[in-house]
Amino acid sequence: MDTQFYMPVRVIEGEECVRRNAALFAPFGRRALIVTGKSSAANGSLADVTAVLDANGQAYEIFDRIPQNPTVECVREGAEIAKRCGAEFVVAVGGGSPMDAAKAIALLARQNIGDLFAQPIGNDALPMIHIPTTAGTGSEVTPYAILTRNDKETKQSISAPSLFPKIAFLDGKYTESLPQNITVNTAIDAVSHAAEGMLSSKAGAASDALARESLRILLGEYESLRAGEYSPAVRQNLLRGAALAGMVIANTGTSPVHTLGYSLTYYHGVPHGRANGLLLPAFLRRCFEKDAPLTRRIYAALGMDAEEFSEKISALLGEREKYPEKELRAWAHKASQSRKSCAVSFSEAELYEVLQEAIGYSE
Amino acid sequence: MDTQFYMPVRVIEGEECVRRNAALFAPFGRRALIVTGKSSAANGSLADVTAVLDANGQAYEIFDRIPQNPTVECVREGAEIAKRCGAEFVVAVGGGSPMDAAKAIALLARQNIGDLFAQPIGNDALPMIHIPTTAGTGSEVTPYAILTRNDKETKQSISAPSLFPKIAFLDGKYTESLPQNITVNTAIDAVSHAAEGMLSSKAGAASDALARESLRILLGEYESLRAGEYSPAVRQNLLRGAALAGMVIANTGTSPVHTLGYSLTYYHGVPHGRANGLLLPAFLRRCFEKDAPLTRRIYAALGMDAEEFSEKISALLGEREKYPEKELRAWAHKASQSRKSCAVSFSEAELYEVLQEAIGYSE
Repeated sequence: MDTQFYMPVRVIEGEECVRRNAALFAPFGRRALIVTGKSSAANGSLADVTAVLDANGQAYEIFDRIPQNPTVECVREGAEIAKRCGAEFVVAVGGGSPMDAAKAIALLARQNIGDLFAQPIGNDALPMIHIPTTAGTGSEVTPYAILTRNDKETKQSISAPSLFPKIAFLDGKYTESLPQNITVNTAIDAVSHAAEGMLSSKAGAASDALARESLRILLGEYESLRAGEYSPAVRQNLLRGAALAGMVIANTGTSPVHTLGYSLTYYHGVPHGRANGLLLPAFLRRCFEKDAPLTRRIYAALGMDAEEFSEKISALLGEREKYPEKELRAWAHKASQSRKSCAVSFSEAELYEVLQEAIGYSE
Repeated sequence: MDTQFYMPVRVIEGEECVRRNAALFAPFGRRALIVTGKSSAANGSLADVTAVLDANGQAYEIFDRIPQNPTVECVREGAEIAKRCGAEFVVAVGGGSPMDAAKAIALLARQNIGDLFAQPIGNDALPMIHIPTTAGTGSEVTPYAILTRNDKETKQSISAPSLFPKIAFLDGKYTESLPQNITVNTAIDAVSHAAEGMLSSKAGAASDALARESLRILLGEYESLRAGEYSPAVRQNLLRGAALAGMVIANTGTSPVHTLGYSLTYYHGVPHGRANGLLLPAFLRRCFEKDAPLTRRIYAALGMDAEEFSEKISALLGEREKYPEKELRAWAHKASQSRKSCAVSFSEAELYEVLQEAIGYSE
């Protein structure tokens, strides 16, 4: 099989990089749709974007009704607004939810697609600029949009090359006001991306190199995450590490950790990164039993053994959720139906055992 | 200053990846110009490309008159052929010379440019697919074309985003028939790219991660390079390592090592990679005196200290060239005029000292 590496996003990183690169916005067109969540105004990101667009004489509308875990209905609404206002490009400002929603909106603004989840989808989308305000999802450098799918009771990914943003701006200052729980959960999400990417059958030299660097950077800030104390440099590092991990999964995809985690999020509202954190250590232990050399490389990249990794993640997570055995069985079944490019294959029974170890029962 | 990472080339790596991905050639258009050197027919690469184009019903002309160190005159001739035959895309097959020439041809086929070296040049070029048959230049993943410039008695780089190939195919089998001297010189070129990239003021987390991985892979094959014995897996590794190093310099540029080396090549025909190899160890020693922490990171990535690195490179190079002091002084002067983004700055006198240590005098 071929190995592919493709990363067409121009990633620009630095203090005040949005305002200092107004010229890069200009060629995108006369009118933008800004897609964001309710809280993005608070961190200054939205003000920077509107200042740049105003200075360039580019008109815009703001669609700020993106909830956590956006639905198909929400992105259809956004696409109607994009069409109505004649948006020539989309600026996404926020965490994973606004960025993923923006991608689906950019797609639906250019194509009439009845079923977003019927693959393959056409490759035409409005061009996008992404500005992450959390350090975790990596959506700013991936071609994926994860949407909540009520008809199948899960979250599901859509993907097309045109969903790669054209530019991603990384400025840690937008993440400085994030509360501790979001900072930790999103950082764990990024760690999980890098580790899961190394487990993929699509991993290659470039993606592995980026995954190792991502883990080195993210886990290098472990003490800050534990203490909940973040300097601007630490914030920038977390954002950088998360983007590197995004470049990894853009090429490798994720693993059953993500698929299992979607059920925790869908049925019980467990934040996405936290769900991955609950599952990843137990999943890696199982991987080690099945493919020790591969998993050993991941522990080497994590800079610790299975025991230490479990303990460190557990210390960040605090008390673990418990759910009924019946639910765990249903989630294992659902995850076993999903195709992933994980180099280590898991049966439904084994996925259940991972859940059992990671979550445990409630009666 | 911002850090940027941009790598829009789809890099596909694997045995027989050209023939197995005929479908990826089809959307590029009805007619191709294949740009190659005289020797590329021997390694099977040209046959694979023409087989794919024939199977797709895509017409092509072959321009195979690219010499070592191509000149402006040569690429103007190629551009005329591209225009005359109505080429919609360019397929470059060969080492650095054909790949760099192909880029300039792709540019000149779409733009009338009187002075190729007057920056900035317009960004319109025919789309390209690149297939390297040496493991060194990394041109398949960079936006640079290095041309010989007789009016200034040197080699000079032109650059534009449209000079990034759309796709690069990496198949080590095309490098299997390379003689020992070319294999060694091109491998040293790649090592130099990775190390020089880490020295750049434009280096960032992604480029450094790729540089370290490149050096790990390339120097992991040192014993094969020393012995001149190459399994297919070693060939593929060298090609992979060179492409990773190319991704690095695509983002960082090179250093005065390259600028000094161009004079050795221009005036005395020293192969490009060999010229870098002659200079790099002495250059790094000087860097260490000026910025020990940065240079220490490079030695760590090389996995050896200054002494061992010098010895290992010297063992590959064999007897060193010697040139008159007067020439060394002229080359140092010329290199001091060239702007590079090296984080360690060198005066003309210091560049001369590097040459003195690396080359030595003849009387």
